[in-house]
Amino acid sequence: MKKLINKVDDVVAESLAGMYSAHSDLIRLLPNVKAVVRACAPATKVAVVSGGGSGHEPMHGGFVGYGMLDAACPGEVFTSPTPEQMYEAAKAADGGKGVLFLVKNYTGDVMNFEMAADLLKADGVEVESVVINDDVAVKDSLYTAGRRGVGGTVLIEKIAGALAQAGASLAEVKEIALWCNDNVRTMGMALTSCTVPAAGRPTFDLPADEIELGVGIHGEPGRKRVAAMTAAEVVDFMAGAVTEDLPFKEGDEVIAFVNGMGGTPLIELYIVYENLKQYLDKKGIQIARSLVGNYITSLDMQGCSITLLKLDSRAKALWDYPVHTPALRWGR
Amino acid sequence: MKKLINKVDDVVAESLAGMYSAHSDLIRLLPNVKAVVRACAPATKVAVVSGGGSGHEPMHGGFVGYGMLDAACPGEVFTSPTPEQMYEAAKAADGGKGVLFLVKNYTGDVMNFEMAADLLKADGVEVESVVINDDVAVKDSLYTAGRRGVGGTVLIEKIAGALAQAGASLAEVKEIALWCNDNVRTMGMALTSCTVPAAGRPTFDLPADEIELGVGIHGEPGRKRVAAMTAAEVVDFMAGAVTEDLPFKEGDEVIAFVNGMGGTPLIELYIVYENLKQYLDKKGIQIARSLVGNYITSLDMQGCSITLLKLDSRAKALWDYPVHTPALRWGR
Repeated sequence: MKKLINKVDDVVAESLAGMYSAHSDLIRLLPNVKAVVRACAPATKVAVVSGGGSGHEPMHGGFVGYGMLDAACPGEVFTSPTPEQMYEAAKAADGGKGVLFLVKNYTGDVMNFEMAADLLKADGVEVESVVINDDVAVKDSLYTAGRRGVGGTVLIEKIAGALAQAGASLAEVKEIALWCNDNVRTMGMALTSCTVPAAGRPTFDLPADEIELGVGIHGEPGRKRVAAMTAAEVVDFMAGAVTEDLPFKEGDEVIAFVNGMGGTPLIELYIVYENLKQYLDKKGIQIARSLVGNYITSLDMQGCSITLLKLDSRAKALWDYPVHTPALRWGR
Repeated sequence: MKKLINKVDDVVAESLAGMYSAHSDLIRLLPNVKAVVRACAPATKVAVVSGGGSGHEPMHGGFVGYGMLDAACPGEVFTSPTPEQMYEAAKAADGGKGVLFLVKNYTGDVMNFEMAADLLKADGVEVESVVINDDVAVKDSLYTAGRRGVGGTVLIEKIAGALAQAGASLAEVKEIALWCNDNVRTMGMALTSCTVPAAGRPTFDLPADEIELGVGIHGEPGRKRVAAMTAAEVVDFMAGAVTEDLPFKEGDEVIAFVNGMGGTPLIELYIVYENLKQYLDKKGIQIARSLVGNYITSLDMQGCSITLLKLDSRAKALWDYPVHTPALRWGR
């Protein structure tokens, strides 16, 4: 294993310290537990809080800031954060209007966010949770009962975060997050495995001439392994699975999100995006907004995911709402 | 070779098409030659134009937009664009106030930009060129007489682009680009080789327990191969070489830019950044601004580069100037 790290045990702490050093205008770290919160004091608004294992950077810490998350708690690599982290992050972010937890559907995350919610309720904080499960690849999986939460999380955090920033109530912010989750679907694939620092070797073996379709963001098994394909063939398979699932129909407007798994360069992601556009054009599905880049990664894995979110005018306006975070920034 | 591509010959064209599809609000492609220009008509301002081989995305096309480049011409992967591309890109970007070519110091690029400048001058267009050579790793190299142009290019395109956007003259924009080039230094390293699609195999062999310090952005040889090191040791070596070269001194203010080579995830780049900050803190060199991410890449190479640019108040204000491109966006 060759990586730009120091001690395996320090990977998460040092990377968080670096993110803070680079973005101290936007974020700060809590002193006693690993949590990223906004640099400014909590606003009188609903606090949107997420978290999960590290190794998916910039998710979630890179999405803390104006118009998106109020706090994020990172666990160790591919390991759920603790209820204490979630509790402390929520307490630091709470502006008195309640807290919405956005939870990717992994058993440990769901359980720990439930415990954190109970702790907060005992303190009199109003808390709601939305569990995100947008991965169409497999039902049940390593770490997960039901579908996994993957790329759709980025879009939900952006849209729910915008509505919270605009001053909506906890019930309203929860409702849009649920609505987004109902309208978003994702599928991923891998050219190579990731390597978890503490393991020191690839999570799974993938022969030099094979790829895995439907892979999870921790290297969990996907739908199938196949001989290496062209980008267009990969898109046909994945966009087919995604569009059939909702289903997305002719005339739908979508956000099309092509996400890199961490080790795939932009030159390839834009090829995937172009193939996706051609695929959707043929189906009469219109890309109204797009996002292309490495936003929810699996350490150094080479591969990508395709996410489609069916838009209405409200979701489109919230996508366009200003956002000012380390990893996503536009407007104003 | 596993990559998310279709035909090897179509990699650059399809990736450009995808970038355009994703960012047609900011950029457009010329119909007859490969060139990225701003979506809007040329403004009455100095046009800042760059280009070079593909495989370094988002550089340069991803930097076309308000406050940065007016046009970029991408060659095939790791191959200089033609004088015709440069000429057509400059013609499309020219707003009547002259054209500044920003040229990374590779023999083919320099020669072709010179020929393009001659063609433009024959048309009565005022043209100046600045050759960027910020790489401290080696003198002379594969493809290059003298030092190579690398990470500093991103910072120079941002700062010169801002001054052009603010309405300065061609002489003034050239002067700031030269000033930046005098005040910026970079060194890169690789954990792994890149794989050029047309070659189909890694450009160089690097054993599983070795890294290469001072590597170029096309996988050209660096200063030396050594046993794998910690991130802090890599930073000590590279930041040492960079700071000694100018030299950067106690009390200096800098932009610190940690760049990923394309295959290195953000979790590692932030560790490198934190180690760099600690290194510079010890030397009394202050990071006034920072940039961390994959901005000038080498296809799928794993590795990073460290760039420092010594700031004065003018350069700092131009760095902060609004920028609105596919890959860099802030302000307003």
